[in-house]
Amino acid sequence: MLGLMMDRPLLISGLLEHAQRQFADVEVVSREIDGTVLRYTYRDLAARARRLARALAGLGMGHGSRVATLAWNNHRHLEAYFAVSGSGAVLHTCNPRLHPEQLAYILNLAEDSIVLFDSSFLPLLEKVAAQCPAIGAFVLMGPVASMPAHSSLPNLLCYEALLDAHDDAFEWPVFDERTASALCFTSGTTDLPKGVLYSHRSTLLHSFALGLPDSLSLSARDCVMPVVPMFHVNAWGIPYAAPMNGCKLVLPGPHLDGASLFALIEREQVTCSAGVPTIWLGLAQYMQSNGVRPTTMRRSAVGGSAMPESLIRTFAESFDVEVRHCWGMTETSPLGTQGVPLAKHAGMSADREYALRSKQGRCVFGVELKIVDGEGDALPRDGKAAGELLVRGPWVASAYFRSDTPLLRDGWFATGDIATIDADGFVQITDRVKDVIKSGGEWISSIELENAAMGHPAIALAAVIGVRHPKWDERPVLCAVKQPGQEIDKAAILQFLADRVARWWLPDEVIFVDSLPLGATGKVQKVDLRRRYAHVLSST
Amino acid sequence: MLGLMMDRPLLISGLLEHAQRQFADVEVVSREIDGTVLRYTYRDLAARARRLARALAGLGMGHGSRVATLAWNNHRHLEAYFAVSGSGAVLHTCNPRLHPEQLAYILNLAEDSIVLFDSSFLPLLEKVAAQCPAIGAFVLMGPVASMPAHSSLPNLLCYEALLDAHDDAFEWPVFDERTASALCFTSGTTDLPKGVLYSHRSTLLHSFALGLPDSLSLSARDCVMPVVPMFHVNAWGIPYAAPMNGCKLVLPGPHLDGASLFALIEREQVTCSAGVPTIWLGLAQYMQSNGVRPTTMRRSAVGGSAMPESLIRTFAESFDVEVRHCWGMTETSPLGTQGVPLAKHAGMSADREYALRSKQGRCVFGVELKIVDGEGDALPRDGKAAGELLVRGPWVASAYFRSDTPLLRDGWFATGDIATIDADGFVQITDRVKDVIKSGGEWISSIELENAAMGHPAIALAAVIGVRHPKWDERPVLCAVKQPGQEIDKAAILQFLADRVARWWLPDEVIFVDSLPLGATGKVQKVDLRRRYAHVLSST
Repeated sequence: MLGLMMDRPLLISGLLEHAQRQFADVEVVSREIDGTVLRYTYRDLAARARRLARALAGLGMGHGSRVATLAWNNHRHLEAYFAVSGSGAVLHTCNPRLHPEQLAYILNLAEDSIVLFDSSFLPLLEKVAAQCPAIGAFVLMGPVASMPAHSSLPNLLCYEALLDAHDDAFEWPVFDERTASALCFTSGTTDLPKGVLYSHRSTLLHSFALGLPDSLSLSARDCVMPVVPMFHVNAWGIPYAAPMNGCKLVLPGPHLDGASLFALIEREQVTCSAGVPTIWLGLAQYMQSNGVRPTTMRRSAVGGSAMPESLIRTFAESFDVEVRHCWGMTETSPLGTQGVPLAKHAGMSADREYALRSKQGRCVFGVELKIVDGEGDALPRDGKAAGELLVRGPWVASAYFRSDTPLLRDGWFATGDIATIDADGFVQITDRVKDVIKSGGEWISSIELENAAMGHPAIALAAVIGVRHPKWDERPVLCAVKQPGQEIDKAAILQFLADRVARWWLPDEVIFVDSLPLGATGKVQKVDLRRRYAHVLSST
Repeated sequence: MLGLMMDRPLLISGLLEHAQRQFADVEVVSREIDGTVLRYTYRDLAARARRLARALAGLGMGHGSRVATLAWNNHRHLEAYFAVSGSGAVLHTCNPRLHPEQLAYILNLAEDSIVLFDSSFLPLLEKVAAQCPAIGAFVLMGPVASMPAHSSLPNLLCYEALLDAHDDAFEWPVFDERTASALCFTSGTTDLPKGVLYSHRSTLLHSFALGLPDSLSLSARDCVMPVVPMFHVNAWGIPYAAPMNGCKLVLPGPHLDGASLFALIEREQVTCSAGVPTIWLGLAQYMQSNGVRPTTMRRSAVGGSAMPESLIRTFAESFDVEVRHCWGMTETSPLGTQGVPLAKHAGMSADREYALRSKQGRCVFGVELKIVDGEGDALPRDGKAAGELLVRGPWVASAYFRSDTPLLRDGWFATGDIATIDADGFVQITDRVKDVIKSGGEWISSIELENAAMGHPAIALAAVIGVRHPKWDERPVLCAVKQPGQEIDKAAILQFLADRVARWWLPDEVIFVDSLPLGATGKVQKVDLRRRYAHVLSST
């Protein structure tokens, strides 16, 4: 027996229509590439998205077409989010930090017929266009005045000219909520990128979960600024959850240094943000150097990699900003876990609270997690047993786009992360399956060692890799970047670590470097480090 | 092109499994009929729900079976919520305040095969059982010791004996999320009751919306007490949203007077509640008389009928409790609107804020609203034009259970409420279509007059009805209950109203009564008043 409730599909266009009806005057603020700030409302966003939808339809975009973007967090990118997905086409957000060969590969695999791009990426596209003959139009996301005098791009069009040529008389189509809405490729460090194809249903359910008090907690009194890029896992879903909940939305553009972010946070009265730890490190350093603190910002989701406990503490104690540590992946839309204390934690000591907040948090409803051993058997939730983290739920990928790589294991997605889960459900990522250091048959967590090292005031960044060792199979090697103006040597950092980790975990070598190699999503590329330092322990 | 995300259905059993995994030790507190307090956890709830599911399967309950309940807000009723719906059967919550004839009618229409009931309702069921021969088992929700020595009920079973006979080895079945989960009949004041058949999908989407910051704002640090009955629109969805968000849940049983509620709120440290205005009036009177205020309770959703502005102000100023005025119906699951200020309202005067909060609020994402005139044409959102409120969304009913009454008008549910919507989307219910007073071709809002009258400190309750008038077709008559110990006469209340409403709105007659007739859901039965006072203006 089926219920007798309205059969209304969950569609991304519904988010925009809700914002237009209920939050017409709420602002969307966009910092453009040239540093100027554009300011309009959800009413304007909705009207321009409809005009863009008409313009793209005129270029041949139809239900199921793929439309690529190469763009920063700005208002035109946001318009494309709604115009493309709202029309039933697929928004393929490309990571501009991908190697040109990889970019050409994903544009061709997706069969993108239109590319919308910010002027910053004109040279990149000129490099790859010849390898992507199926692309019918390249649309530069700017006014006519920003168009280049010459370009090797075929079919180069101007975004604002297209919009000027169309009015906003457009009705969003209604279709199956399982329809594909967006495509995002993982940044393959060694393998080819793999595509995750989100649906309208998965996106809307994810938006509901993201707004809940124990996730980002988004209300109509919030001003949210996603620093995490819109080209990477849909800026963690904020472009959808903000109009759902009526939040003022601030899109920070390409300049994400501490000074630029702080100025924007203050001017726009941002209450809530989201980004990777390196962004918050830059912001903290700026605020500390200048003796300033945010007036309205009170919380931020931090994920992508682990936020050091010391930095979580700095944000709380020096800036009154709650860091909500989270974990997710391209394959999980990305909201997997979020770190917020439970009722039972009320009144606990600051030290215990920061230790708790340094874990990656707990799953919201909709996400199921378990950890398994090498045989696939579930491990206990005791905060000690570490195993591969498996996840399932309605916003978790079931397969990769046009790939034979099987994604599911008995209906679960095996994340490649190694984690513990404690009795309260708090997850702690201890490593990647490929990064964990196998020493004498035991595992050493590279991430725990890195966090311990970054607890030293003279260490700005740290990466620990497993290096081939004649006796122990692998042993840890610490690569560290010093804080500007600080000095520390190998003996001192080993002494510092000796108080914090088991003796047999202590790195066999410490290498001070000027910088660490970062990949397309801002993560340390350990594969490069392993190659570079493959032999440092050979003579041991 | 469909997305490639996991096809996981939204099921009510998933809420319970989530709570069991993530909030195993969080408490569920139940005040029983005899006043004793039972205290257990989501882990216990989940185990007992599985045992109940096995027991009910043993009594013949299968996918699509209907199982009725006649019960207060208590732990066994909660177990039935999950055991019945989780099994794929339909939980039919019956309102014990229905007339026995109506109760027999809905039990037969639903074809309920099992009835679970609290001992309070044994006499009522003994009255109707003979008219409901299809019911195979009557299960008294109590221990063996609570079983009556004699009863005319056939097949009378004991709930705890059934649970004792089964263990909790049970896997919740997986099925289509559109499957019917629960059935609730509207309380027909004049017509026969009409059944709304909720689905797992509608219930889960509603739960997501209910937990958002601008709805009830439910986190794992909240303790929520639904005073609104579990036999009426699923206690506004709180029994589902609480385990979704890990809230401690307090079920207050049958004793809802101010003293009982206050004691429970304080002992259990309730942070958030939900109920109809009469409940909060009783609580306010108790707290004022005793000079006390709640320690932890900071907000409550109030709906079912309009909360007078004066009472909203009392809760804010005397008790530091935010009243979130809401509107909904059995047909809307019920969350339709919720009154929370917008960012633009920051810093407004208290008077303006209370005026805003006396409106019924704004719709959350998922609910679409419009007001229409007599021809069905949309009226402007200007806060002045009043028309019938139409609603649609995935948790709005599309048809009544086994009824030929058409429910939809061009895909929208016509609520029978008359409302204004302002430019910010705030809805104000001005009347029911059947209660609005048609005077000389113009409309007079009975609700606005009632609210104005209840603004007088000597008036406890007020109802305004339209009474047949020889010249004006209808004219308003005010029926009022005085505050205990207060005196007021007709001239004084008319003088008071003259400053607050248009002159031609002033009631032609004022009738002071000891009490107003209340229906099964606690609303004033104006149909009774209209009958009783049909001729008071005939001699005019």
